[in-house]
Amino acid sequence: MQMPFPSDLRGEEMMKTFVRETILNLKGYETKNTPYVYKLDANEGKTLFFSDQATSEREDFNRYPDNEATVLCEVMGKFLGVPTENIVAGNGSSEMIELIMKTFIDTGDGVLSFTPSFSMYEVFTNIYSGRFFSVPSRRDFSLDVDALIAKANEIKPKVILLCNPNNPTGAFLTEAEIKKVIEETNAIIVVDEAYIEFSDGSFVNQVNQYENVIVLRTVSKAFGLASIRLGFMVANKEVINIIKKVKPPYNLNSLSQKYGIEALQKTEKMSRYVLEIKQEREKLYQEMKKLNIEVYPSQANFLFFKSTLVDLAERLQEKGILIRQFSGDLAWYYRVTIGEKEENSAFLNGVKEMVSHASS
Amino acid sequence: MQMPFPSDLRGEEMMKTFVRETILNLKGYETKNTPYVYKLDANEGKTLFFSDQATSEREDFNRYPDNEATVLCEVMGKFLGVPTENIVAGNGSSEMIELIMKTFIDTGDGVLSFTPSFSMYEVFTNIYSGRFFSVPSRRDFSLDVDALIAKANEIKPKVILLCNPNNPTGAFLTEAEIKKVIEETNAIIVVDEAYIEFSDGSFVNQVNQYENVIVLRTVSKAFGLASIRLGFMVANKEVINIIKKVKPPYNLNSLSQKYGIEALQKTEKMSRYVLEIKQEREKLYQEMKKLNIEVYPSQANFLFFKSTLVDLAERLQEKGILIRQFSGDLAWYYRVTIGEKEENSAFLNGVKEMVSHASS
Repeated sequence: MQMPFPSDLRGEEMMKTFVRETILNLKGYETKNTPYVYKLDANEGKTLFFSDQATSEREDFNRYPDNEATVLCEVMGKFLGVPTENIVAGNGSSEMIELIMKTFIDTGDGVLSFTPSFSMYEVFTNIYSGRFFSVPSRRDFSLDVDALIAKANEIKPKVILLCNPNNPTGAFLTEAEIKKVIEETNAIIVVDEAYIEFSDGSFVNQVNQYENVIVLRTVSKAFGLASIRLGFMVANKEVINIIKKVKPPYNLNSLSQKYGIEALQKTEKMSRYVLEIKQEREKLYQEMKKLNIEVYPSQANFLFFKSTLVDLAERLQEKGILIRQFSGDLAWYYRVTIGEKEENSAFLNGVKEMVSHASS
Repeated sequence: MQMPFPSDLRGEEMMKTFVRETILNLKGYETKNTPYVYKLDANEGKTLFFSDQATSEREDFNRYPDNEATVLCEVMGKFLGVPTENIVAGNGSSEMIELIMKTFIDTGDGVLSFTPSFSMYEVFTNIYSGRFFSVPSRRDFSLDVDALIAKANEIKPKVILLCNPNNPTGAFLTEAEIKKVIEETNAIIVVDEAYIEFSDGSFVNQVNQYENVIVLRTVSKAFGLASIRLGFMVANKEVINIIKKVKPPYNLNSLSQKYGIEALQKTEKMSRYVLEIKQEREKLYQEMKKLNIEVYPSQANFLFFKSTLVDLAERLQEKGILIRQFSGDLAWYYRVTIGEKEENSAFLNGVKEMVSHASS
């Protein structure tokens, strides 16, 4: 490698290399927390609605939310074992991915990922006028980091997005593989850990080892809180500070902050649930194998599989069972969420019926 | 004007003129609402938290929110008197302004507004690599639409942002003035009506008369719901459809949708409150005039004024009263939110005290 590795760059130098110039000069939206008796500085109205709501505490519905989501980031930091200053919260991982694009991607800049992966990576890249590149998974849908590194050094992307475990395949990159990508490329490396709780381990504790690594987390999956749209970015302080400059003021509403704080203080509920899902995943994987279905190892809360049964998804849908069906290059491929025993049985029985019909 | 007026363009033509090419080719994120017994297509977890919450209905905390916020847009449509198909909902007016930038602003494209106005217009323009231009208010802070039109025809902006009533001055553009801007320029005209309920009238019913007009609304001010971060865009169907392509999937969490629906069904509470604020505004305006303070007519829930009293904001703050202080070109200018009787009295008494000290 002729280029200096980002991990060799000092933080400031890294910023100049990767951050869009227009962002470097930006001032963040500043909010003050001055104590008050009469707050007449922000044109907020009066609490007209919901003041009697049976929420855990009185809500100041008429006030803007905490711009920094301070308490929420504190409890998330405790849960992850990283300092609060390394965390930004927002409306799901989607907002986090957009913040990354806004911060780093100028017209024509490259973004690299594996394929198949989360489809929004390409959409967001297009919206921000970047050029999207991808490296195909191996035939067994495992991820070839050497191919990714080779492609990166050819096209020199500004951002590399690693969905880990990968959606929709469930394939997993080890810590050593992620480190290899970081060390042998020169880009902002984003590890999207939406499904990480169902896997063997997170990269989140490494963020302070690198200038150029961002880990994304969400409460939409293992925590079962997709409705509140809450996601987090974890990275070293210099990245976080620049991200805060492009973050819209008051981006995360008070209710998502409040519910997030409560849930993140009761993580043992999540842990028990994850254990149950992992066991169910293993059972369903084995059962599908027995049916000679081409199912792939997964470290997420879903299984990716191939089936040549005609109209599989439609026929399951007739029984009230929804699974994800793919098209194009992935025609005949499907993704099923691992649910509770009863849900998984319903799916498996549905498939079994079709298999026996097909072979009779 | 040599150029054809946008209102003369057919919708499709308008789209080609104004929408960024990369967005025209984009496909929106599609979500289906298939009925189900077992939903195993979206990798949502189980409801682990808050299922016992005393909310009005059982919350599906583990499910993604309605991507289109259908019911919310229906009740907002009823309130405004416009069809649902003309409305998009999101995280406050901020997200709406960003959606407009993403859709229309390519590197170097112009954005035009008045100054002073909402400071985030310039920040968002910079983030999206546009060039920001502004036309100064008159010396009495009224808005000179002829000067704006002249500037527009000189610099040819893609987007013109009209904050109406204007923040922070309270100045108001009449329907005739807005129509003049629309008819004598060639741009996307955004009317940001964050404070419109406190004024003489909205432009929102005109959106279907024009191909190129977008009205923004919020529940943060008159509805007293800043905490839930809920804003709306109202425009003709072709604009709405293109905006939906760049809108992140599931952008608005379920709770903000739920609380928004409830509040928008009880708008008489808001109307009574607005009436009270308008009366308080008139009273405070007259009282400030009596103190020889340079205070400007306002159609919003705040008053903009100039005072040469030394350390005015700091000295009010010592009494627990927060008001907004400006700097730079607007040094010695302030903005005070109109609150309830007691709040306004506290502010007025604080100022009176300082005036009597200064003159004694």
